[in-house]
Amino acid sequence: MKYPNGKKYIKNQKDDTEEKGNVRSLLNAANRGMSLEEDINVSNEYYKNKGIALINKRPTPINIVKVNYNQGARITDAYFERQSTTDYNGVYRGRYIDFEAKNTKSSTSFPLSNIGKHQIEHLKNVLKQDGIAFFIICFQTKNEIYLLDASLVIEYYEHGKRKSIPYEVFKEKGVLIKQDYLPRLHYIDAVNALYFK
Amino acid sequence: MKYPNGKKYIKNQKDDTEEKGNVRSLLNAANRGMSLEEDINVSNEYYKNKGIALINKRPTPINIVKVNYNQGARITDAYFERQSTTDYNGVYRGRYIDFEAKNTKSSTSFPLSNIGKHQIEHLKNVLKQDGIAFFIICFQTKNEIYLLDASLVIEYYEHGKRKSIPYEVFKEKGVLIKQDYLPRLHYIDAVNALYFK
Repeated sequence: MKYPNGKKYIKNQKDDTEEKGNVRSLLNAANRGMSLEEDINVSNEYYKNKGIALINKRPTPINIVKVNYNQGARITDAYFERQSTTDYNGVYRGRYIDFEAKNTKSSTSFPLSNIGKHQIEHLKNVLKQDGIAFFIICFQTKNEIYLLDASLVIEYYEHGKRKSIPYEVFKEKGVLIKQDYLPRLHYIDAVNALYFK
Repeated sequence: MKYPNGKKYIKNQKDDTEEKGNVRSLLNAANRGMSLEEDINVSNEYYKNKGIALINKRPTPINIVKVNYNQGARITDAYFERQSTTDYNGVYRGRYIDFEAKNTKSSTSFPLSNIGKHQIEHLKNVLKQDGIAFFIICFQTKNEIYLLDASLVIEYYEHGKRKSIPYEVFKEKGVLIKQDYLPRLHYIDAVNALYFK
């Protein structure tokens, strides 16, 4: 395992959010994570190395315009494409796992505005194929992270009157993910609780 | 469905391989495909639209060095990273599917030199999680495409005396993939034959 033993977390100098995260973690011992994405990636590494689950982050799709082959295939012009799927997928106990992770600063609800229509379509397709699909939502002000089944999110996205999911729905129908040291997020425990009862 | 009805295939001007493929397809009616990758992508689109399976190509991982935010997040310096997984994964009948596709010009064997150690490791992890893992190998000179279970490839990769898998192994233990118009490659039929008997 590369992390957290051995290698130290190398801070991205340009990333102000991470910077703030690091300062905050000094103030708040409970907030061990630099960011939700980092927490999930490190947990996935742990799960992989322990042979528990195999979940990977999909690379960000990039449209390449120009490549300089004189410099050993250096990309000199490109732009970000929209992810047409979710950020994470993989396999656990033979089953297909697919999820998206999001933060919210709101303490009363999770706004649906930062979920794309294409992601909802993708998750509907996953469910159609009997895959396991969910969201991992971090309520930052509460330092609580929930796993919520995708079908509930789809329901609110397509038929909800408000463009958000109330916090109470997470408390009642989601599973609170235990935050720890190794793995940082015990989200596979939440998967067990919800899908492998 | 966007393709092949409606939208025409837009040729990448810079891609010499595609160019050759297009010329070849005019000469060889059996060879409808521009390339194996294109054939798989179009077949995946078909399978998705028909609700048969949901398989996606993973984006190529790119390490971004410089981004110009004045031009709306234009990437001005970046380089290709090695794919640490395979190219394709997804879900079919609840099961996790993972595979790599490769061409070979050899008519007698498939050389293992263009399979990375990291890909073998990844596929071993998939099998450990009870996922379905295989290779799709195109023998270009024969215009034959086979699906071969990853465990066989891993066996040859790690214990084989020769650094290749004889063509006969594909004939005996693989499944010949039917080439057609829609989908271009009936590779899910091969998955059924091998894993859902």
